[in-house]
Amino acid sequence: MEEIGIGIIGTGFMGKSHAIAYRAAGGIFPLKHRPVLEMVADNNEAAGLAAHRQLGFRRVTTDWRALVNDPAVHVVSITTPNTLHKEMALAAIAAGKHVHCEKPIAPSAADAKEMLEAAEKAGVKTQVGFNYIKNPVLKLARDMIASGELGDIIGFRGIHGEDYMTDPDGAWSWRLDPKGGGGVIADLGSHIIGMARFLLGPITEVFADLETVVPTRPVAPGASERRAVEVDDIARLTVRFARGCRGTIEANWCATGRKMQLGFEIAGTKGGLVFTQERFNELQYYKVGGDPRHQGFTRIEASPAHSPYGLFCVAGGHQIGFNDLKTIEAAEFLATIEGNGPSGPDFREAYEIQKIVDTAIQASLSRNWMSIS
Amino acid sequence: MEEIGIGIIGTGFMGKSHAIAYRAAGGIFPLKHRPVLEMVADNNEAAGLAAHRQLGFRRVTTDWRALVNDPAVHVVSITTPNTLHKEMALAAIAAGKHVHCEKPIAPSAADAKEMLEAAEKAGVKTQVGFNYIKNPVLKLARDMIASGELGDIIGFRGIHGEDYMTDPDGAWSWRLDPKGGGGVIADLGSHIIGMARFLLGPITEVFADLETVVPTRPVAPGASERRAVEVDDIARLTVRFARGCRGTIEANWCATGRKMQLGFEIAGTKGGLVFTQERFNELQYYKVGGDPRHQGFTRIEASPAHSPYGLFCVAGGHQIGFNDLKTIEAAEFLATIEGNGPSGPDFREAYEIQKIVDTAIQASLSRNWMSIS
Amino acid sequence: MEEIGIGIIGTGFMGKSHAIAYRAAGGIFPLKHRPVLEMVADNNEAAGLAAHRQLGFRRVTTDWRALVNDPAVHVVSITTPNTLHKEMALAAIAAGKHVHCEKPIAPSAADAKEMLEAAEKAGVKTQVGFNYIKNPVLKLARDMIASGELGDIIGFRGIHGEDYMTDPDGAWSWRLDPKGGGGVIADLGSHIIGMARFLLGPITEVFADLETVVPTRPVAPGASERRAVEVDDIARLTVRFARGCRGTIEANWCATGRKMQLGFEIAGTKGGLVFTQERFNELQYYKVGGDPRHQGFTRIEASPAHSPYGLFCVAGGHQIGFNDLKTIEAAEFLATIEGNGPSGPDFREAYEIQKIVDTAIQASLSRNWMSIS
Amino acid sequence: MEEIGIGIIGTGFMGKSHAIAYRAAGGIFPLKHRPVLEMVADNNEAAGLAAHRQLGFRRVTTDWRALVNDPAVHVVSITTPNTLHKEMALAAIAAGKHVHCEKPIAPSAADAKEMLEAAEKAGVKTQVGFNYIKNPVLKLARDMIASGELGDIIGFRGIHGEDYMTDPDGAWSWRLDPKGGGGVIADLGSHIIGMARFLLGPITEVFADLETVVPTRPVAPGASERRAVEVDDIARLTVRFARGCRGTIEANWCATGRKMQLGFEIAGTKGGLVFTQERFNELQYYKVGGDPRHQGFTRIEASPAHSPYGLFCVAGGHQIGFNDLKTIEAAEFLATIEGNGPSGPDFREAYEIQKIVDTAIQASLSRNWMSIS
Repeated sequence: MEEIGIGIIGTGFMGKSHAIAYRAAGGIFPLKHRPVLEMVADNNEAAGLAAHRQLGFRRVTTDWRALVNDPAVHVVSITTPNTLHKEMALAAIAAGKHVHCEKPIAPSAADAKEMLEAAEKAGVKTQVGFNYIKNPVLKLARDMIASGELGDIIGFRGIHGEDYMTDPDGAWSWRLDPKGGGGVIADLGSHIIGMARFLLGPITEVFADLETVVPTRPVAPGASERRAVEVDDIARLTVRFARGCRGTIEANWCATGRKMQLGFEIAGTKGGLVFTQERFNELQYYKVGGDPRHQGFTRIEASPAHSPYGLFCVAGGHQIGFNDLKTIEAAEFLATIEGNGPSGPDFREAYEIQKIVDTAIQASLSRNWMSIS
Repeated sequence: MEEIGIGIIGTGFMGKSHAIAYRAAGGIFPLKHRPVLEMVADNNEAAGLAAHRQLGFRRVTTDWRALVNDPAVHVVSITTPNTLHKEMALAAIAAGKHVHCEKPIAPSAADAKEMLEAAEKAGVKTQVGFNYIKNPVLKLARDMIASGELGDIIGFRGIHGEDYMTDPDGAWSWRLDPKGGGGVIADLGSHIIGMARFLLGPITEVFADLETVVPTRPVAPGASERRAVEVDDIARLTVRFARGCRGTIEANWCATGRKMQLGFEIAGTKGGLVFTQERFNELQYYKVGGDPRHQGFTRIEASPAHSPYGLFCVAGGHQIGFNDLKTIEAAEFLATIEGNGPSGPDFREAYEIQKIVDTAIQASLSRNWMSIS
Repeated sequence: MEEIGIGIIGTGFMGKSHAIAYRAAGGIFPLKHRPVLEMVADNNEAAGLAAHRQLGFRRVTTDWRALVNDPAVHVVSITTPNTLHKEMALAAIAAGKHVHCEKPIAPSAADAKEMLEAAEKAGVKTQVGFNYIKNPVLKLARDMIASGELGDIIGFRGIHGEDYMTDPDGAWSWRLDPKGGGGVIADLGSHIIGMARFLLGPITEVFADLETVVPTRPVAPGASERRAVEVDDIARLTVRFARGCRGTIEANWCATGRKMQLGFEIAGTKGGLVFTQERFNELQYYKVGGDPRHQGFTRIEASPAHSPYGLFCVAGGHQIGFNDLKTIEAAEFLATIEGNGPSGPDFREAYEIQKIVDTAIQASLSRNWMSIS
Repeated sequence: MEEIGIGIIGTGFMGKSHAIAYRAAGGIFPLKHRPVLEMVADNNEAAGLAAHRQLGFRRVTTDWRALVNDPAVHVVSITTPNTLHKEMALAAIAAGKHVHCEKPIAPSAADAKEMLEAAEKAGVKTQVGFNYIKNPVLKLARDMIASGELGDIIGFRGIHGEDYMTDPDGAWSWRLDPKGGGGVIADLGSHIIGMARFLLGPITEVFADLETVVPTRPVAPGASERRAVEVDDIARLTVRFARGCRGTIEANWCATGRKMQLGFEIAGTKGGLVFTQERFNELQYYKVGGDPRHQGFTRIEASPAHSPYGLFCVAGGHQIGFNDLKTIEAAEFLATIEGNGPSGPDFREAYEIQKIVDTAIQASLSRNWMSIS
């Protein structure tokens, strides 16, 4: 079995997660090539060495350009802070590498478009880390919608709420950098917008109310000096889909008590679905009709009936975890590179999502509906 | 113990519910007067007689004006279709009677204002059937907010979703009459708007997207002829509260699978609350801080610690039902008439809610934010 | 409409609950007679007068024998401490009255048998307060079992757990009086045993482990003197049913945190059911077979499809409460007296349940399986 | 970093799971050695080759004895059918290898004892695949019990229910082989018995009712010929713990609709816990005392506060999956071999569990309580 070399830039939470995923992917999915952790790059030498040793990379470098240009690296994973993605991705594309980039890939749709066009021109494959939609029960949800099993779709209500910015004395961080292109609308909003698109297709129009809940934050943990916050803490969107239905989307990192409230409710004329990432091995399904004595939402548990769950667990009830979603993402990207299997979300999809993010920011400022151009 | 005579106009679902509530109130609450079901009015003679017999009224009439003017009737309950409320309420007020009216009390804020002013001028007490906020655990929620236990309030997300209009071939009904002043925004929206105000106080600004999901409906069950629907099936609001926080509110009678999705999530800097009427003897509470190993939402069960639950059940776990909420509403109105206890929601509160309903309809047409005047 | 006079002995929690129930029953159920609260008896004169005034009885007495023999009293409700039930019931039967008695009706099966035989000989109707099985969704459960919809029944696991005796310094009370015929096995065990019989029919054999968790308790709240506890705090039963399946039953008043953990799980070859009184307007149903992608437990919500829920609420989601269960119990007893409707649980059923309680106590002492004679 | 060679015997569900776990362990846990998948053995050559290729083993063999004796193999994982465990484990121990064996390690306590004594004599480390107790929130549960945070423990109710044998026409399989030492009591019962011991310590006495629900099964899928079933389908145990409290334990592979109903409820004088593997990233905790308005069960979500969750996920809400439990098991075994970290469950613990299994089988036959010798 031939090897395919993975190079990962960045060794933080996401760098480790990519390493775990690529390491696992080869053992779990029936791929043509064996993924190997060829090289890791971190400009912090100690961090790079630690990752090299701990995560089992063959080589380590402090120079991400060396990684990008290394002939044994076929796939470049970019897990650095958002503002660095573009430069690295363009370099990797220029070197003819397939690129797996964390979300959001760029601070603006214009940047995303540049990256997308470079990749398409170079003929390399791309993948973006919208890991939550790799969930087997969300593939079921999409299938049920696409097949007409839910009838005509009536409405959508989506949210991604977490509470890591609830504390008004929580310190300023890179997430609040206005150069990143938005606050929670970019960080969490891109997940739920992507999920909405994954399930229901294009969004055409948006109204938004973006709010900065905490106007200033300590410049560092415990500091008395405070810095102004210029980005949104909560984003509340009203949206219209190309297919005709409408809905709402909320992104919120001040959602007190919530650790992973990424979810939605979808109503259709023949059925309804309710999902929350808090219990992501489950999907609630209501089927219209039948014996009225038995009507109600059915709690479907993820099982081998929901591909690719069966590659991880022998039976329902066992359950997959967050890192398994990342493993599916990595494996499906490798399959795409090998010419098989589902593609995406790729840079084009990331661009479409970023356009909605950008438009929501504008719509909030203008206090008006705006079309997604 | 002196009697207080109750006269109820209407014998449908709500008429029966009022009768059950007033009958029960005297046995459960420590009132000064004994409520008696003095008279029932229905222009359908057979329906009136059946209610008279079944529900145990002393007298029955087909002439609601006779009821309103009867000297033994001290409280007039109005449970007829919404378009009739105003005339009946004004007549009852003119006769010096206290008025308990179902919601919405009028098809417009202007009408509601006229009713409110008449009542205040006459010095009679009024009550409106926003029964869901009579829930003991919602009183707890309000107390927790008012006392500062939740800290500064960050955001609100509320919904009232049911599915009785999901079926596109469901027949046209009085709920769709544009003379009623709105579709779901008036019918269900008034409940969740009222609940938002009950918990967080005045709303000052609103953006709205009102949607008619089913453009035409059969003129009657099974009919092939169809009639245009002129009112909203789903209303999606973005709102701002006078206290500074913001939120969203959805009213939706096409919420497939939902029978009573009346609920909210409130985030504060010191705590969060989650509630759904689907399990209305429970309130979820997250307290910020404490041992990180133990953090999470606590499922508080209604108990005698939450007044007036203890008047109904000896211990937590027993649970109250919908009709008990109505009984609290009736009993609290009687206590108000007797000069005790909490007042409201009265006609003034109904007027405030109706202004938001009216403004939301206008805001949706104008596609802009609008202030509540 | 003719009246039927209700006389209630006792004015505690259960006395009040019976009064509320009989008062409501006439307004909610289509009965032939109108129930009236004719008389209340309490040997504490002040308590009796308060109930008379508050609950709306026509008359009050300190002499329960006067109530039992009053010609205007047709139904005698006995809500006094358990050790008094027998004398009162026998007197009421002797006076030709129908008897509604709280559970357990007697401290032993022998006593219960004597009461049952007296009632059957006198031709009066009897009813026992196993209110939880009056739940509409439990009638659905029984129908699903009886109709074969669940296939052959494989097993049963039932529990009634509450926590009101968890505190080791909680005071001694009448519930611990060994003359009452048992501790939790009689108090809570009778409910879950009755529910098991209601659903699955006779139990033929029992093994039991009864345990006194708290060996001594303060003689009164706050007292330093302690009194030995001679009855069981937890009872763990293994049982066999006449229909062939087996199961377990637990009764536990030291179930920390539980306020109403009365529930069961039933497995059948074609389906399974899960129920808990903590959310008693719901029944979980798993149907074997069908599309494997959609399998799971369906959360059925009580609705008008589940008689007699529709007499209380117009639609699913509204929900009934504890006092409504008691109202169903009262109304069904009145219907039985009128010659209509379902009967029971009557004294015969209470006797059958008491035999199981008695046998479990013996089985625990003997540390062996014992047959229900 | 030095390597430690892993050899796995068996390539079924559990063989794959061990391979995934050892592959991941090195990247996730801070170990001194790097685990490498050195060799896989399967007597089915094609299966072995497929695993070799797919899972990334360095070498493959059809002769498990070759694996056991290979100098590059330091840890032998045994994932074959239960009846083969003993011979393989003894051979590995004789070769001086550390042994990681799936549960149950042997069909009887006597066999388990022989294996345990061999391992202890040889000074090798052992580990048994009771993976569910590797859950971070169960370590929290154990800590809360051990620290006295729950007060004195009052009672335990445990279950492991799944439904893979519910269908009466499901075929006979190796799980039903009486040579394996028991049916569900060995297969699932060992998990919940082990969990009970993990949390509460030794069990001293047991009563049991073992039941064969399906008396005969098709000899193969679809066959008309049927074979008698000699082992238990449901086991219902009543138990007493050395610490003084009592409880019940159920093992059930005919639990219709249940895919992973492995759970328990523990009551203590100061708190209570509820857990189910169906939602194994959560633990429900009730704390006695405090403000009565706020009392209830708190749903604790697994987070970095619960070691070693933080090695897998950066924050609460992300969640670990089944294979991550197995990874913890593998990593902790490697740490034990390296002289660090928590040990077990080892062969001694497996022996203790097997004694309870054996005693339960005897107790059921004798219809009596039996002591664990």
